[in-house]
Amino acid sequence: MSLLAIGSVAFDDVETPFGRRERALGGSATYFALGASRFHPVRIVAVVGEDFGPDQMRAFEGRPIDLQGLARVPGRSFHWKGAYGYDLNEARTLATELNVFATFHPDLPETYRQSPFLFLGNIDPVLQLDVVGQMAQRPRWIALDTMNYWIQSARPALERVLREVDILLVNDAEIRQLTEEHSLLKAYRRVQAMGPRILVVKRGEYGVALFTPEGVFGAPAYPLEEVFDPTGAGDTFAGGFLGYLAWMDRVDTTALKHATLVGSVMASFTVERFSTERLEQITQDDVRNRLSLFSDMIRVEDL
Amino acid sequence: MSLLAIGSVAFDDVETPFGRRERALGGSATYFALGASRFHPVRIVAVVGEDFGPDQMRAFEGRPIDLQGLARVPGRSFHWKGAYGYDLNEARTLATELNVFATFHPDLPETYRQSPFLFLGNIDPVLQLDVVGQMAQRPRWIALDTMNYWIQSARPALERVLREVDILLVNDAEIRQLTEEHSLLKAYRRVQAMGPRILVVKRGEYGVALFTPEGVFGAPAYPLEEVFDPTGAGDTFAGGFLGYLAWMDRVDTTALKHATLVGSVMASFTVERFSTERLEQITQDDVRNRLSLFSDMIRVEDL
Repeated sequence: MSLLAIGSVAFDDVETPFGRRERALGGSATYFALGASRFHPVRIVAVVGEDFGPDQMRAFEGRPIDLQGLARVPGRSFHWKGAYGYDLNEARTLATELNVFATFHPDLPETYRQSPFLFLGNIDPVLQLDVVGQMAQRPRWIALDTMNYWIQSARPALERVLREVDILLVNDAEIRQLTEEHSLLKAYRRVQAMGPRILVVKRGEYGVALFTPEGVFGAPAYPLEEVFDPTGAGDTFAGGFLGYLAWMDRVDTTALKHATLVGSVMASFTVERFSTERLEQITQDDVRNRLSLFSDMIRVEDL
Repeated sequence: MSLLAIGSVAFDDVETPFGRRERALGGSATYFALGASRFHPVRIVAVVGEDFGPDQMRAFEGRPIDLQGLARVPGRSFHWKGAYGYDLNEARTLATELNVFATFHPDLPETYRQSPFLFLGNIDPVLQLDVVGQMAQRPRWIALDTMNYWIQSARPALERVLREVDILLVNDAEIRQLTEEHSLLKAYRRVQAMGPRILVVKRGEYGVALFTPEGVFGAPAYPLEEVFDPTGAGDTFAGGFLGYLAWMDRVDTTALKHATLVGSVMASFTVERFSTERLEQITQDDVRNRLSLFSDMIRVEDL
């Protein structure tokens, strides 16, 4: 059993009303791996430049994260610069330097090609499709994240890869842009016609909506005193969500609901500090305690 | 046992991307009474003008809604005109004609002064306080709704009436404006210091967050295919919420969680059509069925 993730490993410059960080560890594959590896071994496929050194690698050490697929090539690593206002729901991108990511062509190590769970992080859908094509057999579960940029500029490729996907994870604006439907129930039917039979809509501080053929589930965000930096929340959510499903080795409605809670709890750690600062520090007890609190919080006796 | 509500009974002109209505029945007390009277008898205190006729009164007929406190005076009824864009979360007010509401001084009928549950709808906090003062004894539970206009222009009076209040029901923007805190957990502590020990944050399509001294609860909105007109959703929620609590005659955490689901379900009917069109038509079975679906939807087995 393994969970394979493709995405970015990057440096982020982030500014929020509560402070700033420069060249902090970031990237979708980074947050995903840190979130998922609490529950299940993860293999990542990504690329970094020569500026990615031991200080950055330390975040992955001592965890069940296979870095065989993390290519190191000449040049500088992917670099994102963004800022948030008091409404932490939306990032303003100030700069995106693709650097080594611009010419990245994922090449899966032989051992990776059997992974039963595959997460296609938010990158060019052409690359996402390429990765699917490199698998020795179709993974049992393929999940995909994308964003407004690809929906607008690469829709044909995105539609091709979506036909291969089981679980689509996006935010409110993205699902409405992709389906051209405001109602999420209608959007979900459009998504089903595109391929994915499960839709997860990430709504930041408003929580998560989960759509399955059996029905709809909504969970609030885990309530926090402070949100310092929302960067990586969505990828950490995806990591917790898929890490939990891979660990359970079961994708039914109950497991999906639980995975939603697990993803939300993992994301809640990410946003409490900048970058991966908190996510790296937490213990299994921290995760268990917060999951237990969250589970109590949303429990309702039958009406 | 009774549930007393003060608020507006009005004519609304509403335009949404899906259509428009002119001089449709509206007002906070109207929606509240229609939502609450499914569960418990309601008494309303409000004022209408000579233009409010049998066509409008029909909405209240055949329901346990006591209209003894609905004053009819010379002049025209309160008239609100608003529009919504595709983001149905926020109304744009085009006109507010207070008319008979401008000189409204609530005078509680003698029988009303014993009501154990009191809802102070979104009106001038000076009038809200006046109503509290007219009660023969302090109601067991006082709930209050307010809005940005009063928070900004009548804060001292609002703070005075809040000292008497048990349950505050507001939206995201209002709670942040009132407490000057972005974090809802911090905002809740500020609210507790102001008086109310229970806070209900209405978040439109994102559901409801409930804060009690025992913890936080979040429920999604009931998922709908179509939202035609969000006008009245908050007051219908308050009606379902307090009507259910009055019916249960119990305000503990379980009852409050259930009341949140009931309020959400009642509000879901309101927004499916314009004005009170759907809310007037539904049967007790419609309410029961939707409550049962909603309850199943959010149920999670223990992790």
